[in-house]
Amino acid sequence: MKHLDKINLPEDLRQLKTADLPQLAKELRTFIIDIVATKEGHLGASLGVVELTIALHYVYNTPLDKLIWDVGHQAYVHKILTGRKNLFETNRQMGGISGFPNRRESIYDDFGTGHSSTSISAILGMAIASKIKGDKDRQHIAVIGDASIASGMAFEGLNHAGVTDTNILIILNDNAIGIDPSVGALKKYLTNVKKGTAKEENIFECLNFDYSGPIDGHDITILIAELERLKNVKGPKLLHIITTKGKGLLQAEADQVTYHAPGKFDKLTGDLIPKSTQEGPPKYQDVFGHSIVELAKNNMHIIGITPAMPTGSSLKYMMEQIPDRAFDVGIAEQHAVTMAAGMAAEGLVPFCNIYSTFLQRAYDQVIHDVALQKLPVIFCLDRAGLVGQDGATHHGVYDIAYLRCIPNMIIFAPMNEMELRNIMYTAQLGLDRPIAIRYPRGRGVLKDWKQPFQKITIGTAVELQKGTKIAVLSLGHIGNSIKELLKDVDSSRKIGHYNMRFVKPLDEKMVEMILENYEHIITIEDGSKIGGMGSAVLEFSNLIGSNKKIKIFGIDDTFIEHGTVDELQALCNIDVLSLKNYIHELY
Amino acid sequence: MKHLDKINLPEDLRQLKTADLPQLAKELRTFIIDIVATKEGHLGASLGVVELTIALHYVYNTPLDKLIWDVGHQAYVHKILTGRKNLFETNRQMGGISGFPNRRESIYDDFGTGHSSTSISAILGMAIASKIKGDKDRQHIAVIGDASIASGMAFEGLNHAGVTDTNILIILNDNAIGIDPSVGALKKYLTNVKKGTAKEENIFECLNFDYSGPIDGHDITILIAELERLKNVKGPKLLHIITTKGKGLLQAEADQVTYHAPGKFDKLTGDLIPKSTQEGPPKYQDVFGHSIVELAKNNMHIIGITPAMPTGSSLKYMMEQIPDRAFDVGIAEQHAVTMAAGMAAEGLVPFCNIYSTFLQRAYDQVIHDVALQKLPVIFCLDRAGLVGQDGATHHGVYDIAYLRCIPNMIIFAPMNEMELRNIMYTAQLGLDRPIAIRYPRGRGVLKDWKQPFQKITIGTAVELQKGTKIAVLSLGHIGNSIKELLKDVDSSRKIGHYNMRFVKPLDEKMVEMILENYEHIITIEDGSKIGGMGSAVLEFSNLIGSNKKIKIFGIDDTFIEHGTVDELQALCNIDVLSLKNYIHELY
Repeated sequence: MKHLDKINLPEDLRQLKTADLPQLAKELRTFIIDIVATKEGHLGASLGVVELTIALHYVYNTPLDKLIWDVGHQAYVHKILTGRKNLFETNRQMGGISGFPNRRESIYDDFGTGHSSTSISAILGMAIASKIKGDKDRQHIAVIGDASIASGMAFEGLNHAGVTDTNILIILNDNAIGIDPSVGALKKYLTNVKKGTAKEENIFECLNFDYSGPIDGHDITILIAELERLKNVKGPKLLHIITTKGKGLLQAEADQVTYHAPGKFDKLTGDLIPKSTQEGPPKYQDVFGHSIVELAKNNMHIIGITPAMPTGSSLKYMMEQIPDRAFDVGIAEQHAVTMAAGMAAEGLVPFCNIYSTFLQRAYDQVIHDVALQKLPVIFCLDRAGLVGQDGATHHGVYDIAYLRCIPNMIIFAPMNEMELRNIMYTAQLGLDRPIAIRYPRGRGVLKDWKQPFQKITIGTAVELQKGTKIAVLSLGHIGNSIKELLKDVDSSRKIGHYNMRFVKPLDEKMVEMILENYEHIITIEDGSKIGGMGSAVLEFSNLIGSNKKIKIFGIDDTFIEHGTVDELQALCNIDVLSLKNYIHELY
Repeated sequence: MKHLDKINLPEDLRQLKTADLPQLAKELRTFIIDIVATKEGHLGASLGVVELTIALHYVYNTPLDKLIWDVGHQAYVHKILTGRKNLFETNRQMGGISGFPNRRESIYDDFGTGHSSTSISAILGMAIASKIKGDKDRQHIAVIGDASIASGMAFEGLNHAGVTDTNILIILNDNAIGIDPSVGALKKYLTNVKKGTAKEENIFECLNFDYSGPIDGHDITILIAELERLKNVKGPKLLHIITTKGKGLLQAEADQVTYHAPGKFDKLTGDLIPKSTQEGPPKYQDVFGHSIVELAKNNMHIIGITPAMPTGSSLKYMMEQIPDRAFDVGIAEQHAVTMAAGMAAEGLVPFCNIYSTFLQRAYDQVIHDVALQKLPVIFCLDRAGLVGQDGATHHGVYDIAYLRCIPNMIIFAPMNEMELRNIMYTAQLGLDRPIAIRYPRGRGVLKDWKQPFQKITIGTAVELQKGTKIAVLSLGHIGNSIKELLKDVDSSRKIGHYNMRFVKPLDEKMVEMILENYEHIITIEDGSKIGGMGSAVLEFSNLIGSNKKIKIFGIDDTFIEHGTVDELQALCNIDVLSLKNYIHELY
């Protein structure tokens, strides 16, 4: 590659003539497509900002100037141009580079951005820091998409930045799509701006920003000229650029949702490479998606809500089939939860499907609007536990701890597809308080999962196997590995296995029986050890005066990076081998 | 009172002639002033919405029509007009009515609103519910202040509502003040609207709302006419009204910050009644406020940040004396935390002062932007523990549990003013990770608190008294009562007393020593028992194989209503008497 081969750092890029940059853009697209086609990863977002990334590093003096990428999966070009070209093939692999900007990875990554809408606040903080430290010439730029800027915290950042005298530049990368198409009034407004049908005053001008655009985000010449001009404009500025997600790969432009993170594909044709043709068990996501449709057809009060994840959560099935009762509210977890509370207050049955890591964004709403009012909102916490390649920003490992301390909450983790279906069925029959149902990303274990619904009694665990000496109390899907392990190592059936299901209310009767009857107690969960299910068992054990030691398997008090789920479970010692070794010593 | 005497419910109000309503407004003001003058409570906000509240219940068919008051301390008139006139003197007292709307208290309280900015999401949920249930004629109204509407989740609600076909009415009660004066670009914009200097298109019209106003919110005739008109306007609507906080009481209009919740005052003159003239120990708030000024004068990198609580947190002292480095960002906890992260990333030393209950709004930002990046943001969690009369929505009792599971966090609770000062001093010297310093509302114990700063070693507890049989491990301010108690009941010094200070990292060496040397272990904290400091001790004890029972005193797994702090501590069995009784049995 004529130009890319010579570029390792932005200073190399800055040696090129402006006329060479479109060729570099082509080479970068080829480079990214070649690698993502086989190694997998996020594709569309980065293809959409090739020209923008080149222009930014060409015009600005990075890393002295500060540059933040909002939702970092658009930052692949940035990584390639800032010293990580040769590492790029390790993207998202264990020990390799992260799929998101990461401060520990590079001095060019000014701020980690796995969750969306943080960039305006962060860049404002940096701009204020530069003022206070006397760095007058430093520039501060944040690139944010139209889906991300519609989230509440981005508005909070704009609202503050608009009354400061900092010279920050917010670049609104408007491609009308997040992971799924953007929604909401602001999106509609931006469409009017692009069509020229908006009225005189711009919404960003209302917030005291110097607005310019919209301009073509794929025209490097225009981009560079505008960025050069803006360098000398004082005060908070917003540049509106129009880009196409997936730009440069026909299929990615045509099917932007699929090609957000397409898995493996043919780098020449762009065609997806079908995953193993063998029929396996379904994803938990699809079990949720199909079951809510099934339930909603019989219960007219059921509502489905997702904050910007219709495809990821599979709520899309309900949105297609029952559009009046299924809502994508955009990246607005806080709103999603409190709207669900309003609905529940009026007798509807809202299923609020939010990734475990993103429910962190609506923690106060869960406490104050839902639990305190004892409103029976049904939270489906997708991607609970270790999520794999998305890494530290996305693991859903704190939910048990942060939900368990909230009064009135029911917390349930299904061990398999049937338990997910049945708890959904049970919840919509009518509970007197909220429930959180946490389940992992990916496949379950039952091919034949679509069985008639059965009601689950709240607060009951299941004895899967009676033992004599050692009791293993497992939570959720991880119980399946334990089941397999016990078949393997426990021919004399010394080991009892209990599927706890409910973290709260804990099945105290069952736990009391276990504490009385077994010598060794083991708990295992794919969540934080601190405050998790193991702690719940321990707190109860202490309360009733049992003095048996409880061995708690879970995530240690450290952030876990990216890798496959299997690799990470081994790293966290919650894999089968770790348990096997421990049991071996007791057996 | 001519009219008010006859009114118990809105249906009585609706019997009055429009011409009688201004007189009723006068009577309501007198009624509120008379009672709040002696019983205390929030004053200014409710005085500002007397006419609006009358007009709403006069025009709308409450409780069939749905009405939500955003930040419910403006809802006193609403309570008085909806069956609670005779209970109003019990406002905020134990067993009395709540200072905020409360669904369990009245069918007229459609949604509990102790925290701000939730009303748009909630009313939208209710409006969608009405559509789905076929209640076509039901009206849905939310009243929200200009400070509250600037918070992120309100924007999320507007952004969604703007593209729905619901007929919700949002009434923007614009008085240019929250508890402290409103800030931010939106506030500036609204000022331009009021002055007629804003350009053609309105920001709410950009979001697809039918905008009307601004109108005089103290003119009942105009209000009624406009509400009647809006009843028949389809789609999402926003009515902008201008009111004066504290309207009708001269001093309250002149000093709106003080008269937000003025304490006792002379109902005729409006003059404040001075609290006990005797010099007592200072409030923790003032210790924070004065100490940060002291530190910031020597450390040019220190920044103070408050989301809309300059007075409540006492950051106002720094805002007055060092305005360049002290920021009120408005009701924007998410932004406050991530901006602080941006500052810390660039080497500043941000003190982010947020009430414990409101940090729930920025939980994801604490995890994702601060802790994951190991940025040394200093969180000062004001109003941790039981807060008293503000009740269930405001107690800061989950922070220990929700922060403890986050890797890299340091969690500290000072036992007195000196420990607060010294940990602030220690933190600004430079930590390699974030710290949360939690302290209660109200007074400390040391009159002579302003001593030279001393460094505290991270992760160390303090042995206050060596004992032989019983060890009490206390966290924070509550330790002072234990100290007094032990003087009283422990003449033979059997009881050891340990000021734990750090929930995390736990002083494991000290705890191990305690577990070895004492027969009975007691922990006490003013936070949730589940996942709290007691659990931390228990988890460690279990890990090292100690089998001593640990008696955990803390807040049970239930929401605690309002009352004085003393009353509530007794209710929660974390008062001196409860501990005394327990110790008595062991002694």
